[in-house]
Amino acid sequence: MQYKDLDKKTLKGLLDAEYKIFNSYKNLGLSYDMTRGKPCRIQLDLSNELENQKYLKGFSSISDQEVRNYGVLDGIPEAKKLMAEMLGVGTEEIVVGGNSSLNLMYDLLVRFMLFGTGTEGCRPWVKEEKLKWICLVPGYDRHFLITEKLGFELIAVPLQGDGPDMDMVEELVKDPCVKGIWMIPKYSNPTGEVFSDEKIRRLAAMETGAKDFRIMCDDAYTVHFLREAPAKQLNMLEACKEAGNPDRVFLFCSTSKITFPGSGISAVGASEKNIKYLLSCLTVQTICYDKVNQLRHARFLKDYDGIIAHMKKHAEILLPKFEAVNNILAKELGGLGILKWTKPDGGYFISIDTLPGCASAVVAKAKECGVKFTPAGATFPYRQDPNDSNIRIAPTLPPIQELEAAINILCVCVKICSMEKLLENCEE
Amino acid sequence: MQYKDLDKKTLKGLLDAEYKIFNSYKNLGLSYDMTRGKPCRIQLDLSNELENQKYLKGFSSISDQEVRNYGVLDGIPEAKKLMAEMLGVGTEEIVVGGNSSLNLMYDLLVRFMLFGTGTEGCRPWVKEEKLKWICLVPGYDRHFLITEKLGFELIAVPLQGDGPDMDMVEELVKDPCVKGIWMIPKYSNPTGEVFSDEKIRRLAAMETGAKDFRIMCDDAYTVHFLREAPAKQLNMLEACKEAGNPDRVFLFCSTSKITFPGSGISAVGASEKNIKYLLSCLTVQTICYDKVNQLRHARFLKDYDGIIAHMKKHAEILLPKFEAVNNILAKELGGLGILKWTKPDGGYFISIDTLPGCASAVVAKAKECGVKFTPAGATFPYRQDPNDSNIRIAPTLPPIQELEAAINILCVCVKICSMEKLLENCEE
Repeated sequence: MQYKDLDKKTLKGLLDAEYKIFNSYKNLGLSYDMTRGKPCRIQLDLSNELENQKYLKGFSSISDQEVRNYGVLDGIPEAKKLMAEMLGVGTEEIVVGGNSSLNLMYDLLVRFMLFGTGTEGCRPWVKEEKLKWICLVPGYDRHFLITEKLGFELIAVPLQGDGPDMDMVEELVKDPCVKGIWMIPKYSNPTGEVFSDEKIRRLAAMETGAKDFRIMCDDAYTVHFLREAPAKQLNMLEACKEAGNPDRVFLFCSTSKITFPGSGISAVGASEKNIKYLLSCLTVQTICYDKVNQLRHARFLKDYDGIIAHMKKHAEILLPKFEAVNNILAKELGGLGILKWTKPDGGYFISIDTLPGCASAVVAKAKECGVKFTPAGATFPYRQDPNDSNIRIAPTLPPIQELEAAINILCVCVKICSMEKLLENCEE
Repeated sequence: MQYKDLDKKTLKGLLDAEYKIFNSYKNLGLSYDMTRGKPCRIQLDLSNELENQKYLKGFSSISDQEVRNYGVLDGIPEAKKLMAEMLGVGTEEIVVGGNSSLNLMYDLLVRFMLFGTGTEGCRPWVKEEKLKWICLVPGYDRHFLITEKLGFELIAVPLQGDGPDMDMVEELVKDPCVKGIWMIPKYSNPTGEVFSDEKIRRLAAMETGAKDFRIMCDDAYTVHFLREAPAKQLNMLEACKEAGNPDRVFLFCSTSKITFPGSGISAVGASEKNIKYLLSCLTVQTICYDKVNQLRHARFLKDYDGIIAHMKKHAEILLPKFEAVNNILAKELGGLGILKWTKPDGGYFISIDTLPGCASAVVAKAKECGVKFTPAGATFPYRQDPNDSNIRIAPTLPPIQELEAAINILCVCVKICSMEKLLENCEE
């Protein structure tokens, strides 16, 4: 029984019934926050051991560097090795940063604006008349915001379940004003999709009008699997090297959703040439990042296998939450033809698409019941979803009972808003 | 007996004698690094307790904020209170940052370049034809480097033992291209001088051609006294408020030389209006700074009195080093008329001035004996000291025996280079 096939009278009857349920929820006076992709307390507890003093014994790195004092701009060797393994780059192709990979991305784009990319014959981007940037949608609001703030015109390109619409991307990048693209290649925020190797190869090889075109590849969820193991994927830097464009991409990752968000370590990976250029600018900005925290993380997580073992524990906490959302959505909305949703194997989100024109109304309705979802449109440039259809669900933070309640409420709101939309359409 | 009063023959005799000592030092094969202002290991050990897990108990701030998760852009309340006391500002006038106050300064200037200062009617600085910046000399190389990298023309203004030559500053700032000034008001790097309240008032009140003129006030050594207590000083933000220019100044400090350099916390203080503007930009850049480290520092240092008690321990380690340098300089060079040096009551440096044209030669000569000093000129914009006279001595890092050896070698090098300069002058 698809809602769209129902007659007006049946719809109105169903709508009345749903409003009764809605009002009963409304009277509960709930206050749930489903807006951000934060780990829950039990996940955080997995890393409390990180703060054990034993991990700082001797306060020195394997290169005999005193970690309590100034120095070592690119990171201590054991932290570089750990993060290089995670990013799939060499230890000469990495800088280990501070507590925020987002800040590394911001810093890099600021550098491109003020000092240029270091590409021969290219100017600092502030000198250009017009700047454009490709944003894959639905995507991560904080990415889009950085390029918006820096004055880029943001161009939305749809994701297709296995990465971007590459025909569209290849056409757009012929424009020399298009300076780059944001991407999250694995378990993308919010769709959870894994870019195919073929699309990664096309991104690496495509002809770009701008000689200093850059891919900002945020590999935020590279080890954040929900089931057996992380998805295998062609490394973006590897692909760029193979295509003869080694300087096209910068990779980013952090331990934010491995240990403690806001108190982890981050890293940027790139060609040796790019890393040299980055360090030549970075030395003006700071003396070093927090090496004590680097040592703590390197010793606590040990190596790539250590990270995977640790992420397995996260997965055990998270998978039931993702399954609960999926089960409720399937039970409540399955077959009604009013909602599509993703079933990711990793990452932090479930992405839902309502009927066109319903997303804002759904979020507003849920808010009436005390359940806050990420504002509709947040996953699009300028916070505007042309279809008003996408909502990002963040199932990780709330306890499972809260999550289930919130999703049940969401389902009621989706039903109500869909029926109201269909009725509105009937009347037109 | 001043060297300048000696005849050629006497000088030559003395020079030969000094070269014998020089050569004996040279043959020792020493390798001492006196270049940077780093705390020594015993100072670092004062804060090892910082890493005790007890300081993180509960992982939550007094505002019940979970410090292990994302959020709280401006810092947890106890860290804000601690740093506000140190900077002498209100808790609404501060943002607590990451591990580097230098990075906060860089970030702020980058913001002014790309987005402007938030002053009504003023453009982002990248839009200006010409940008100039006042650098007090001798000063801190990393300050100068930031404004150099951002494309400012750097204008040197001499310090006078109680702050800048204010007549010169007041004249220069009439030029609307002059956008700001670097300053270290207390125990300035490297002169150790404390700006007088009168000069602070003049800096706060002076008429500036640029409506968005900014004072970058790096209060890096505000609690870094060597004797009884920190010098009392009029607060620069207070002075600016009194003068009706509350938005003119940004204050910076950090715990880098209190606990662990590179692993401390930093802060920026300013008017509430400036802080609001700063946060509106910062939210694009990062989600939050490291709150676990903020909690650790706030609980370990407790409050302003706790900081002072802790700094007293640093002073006990450092004062003998500063006195050793002073004693050797007085003993070896006193009355010779070839070297002036500072006798600071705080900070990290002793600043020396050789006869004009000797500083580079002294540093080169010392290097021949295996003793590395900060390159001559480093304390000036573009690394060029017009008098080739200033050298920054950093006595904190080496053990006292090394320090004494290094300063004895320095004295021999100063004698040699001074005599060679005087002989050269005779021959002209």
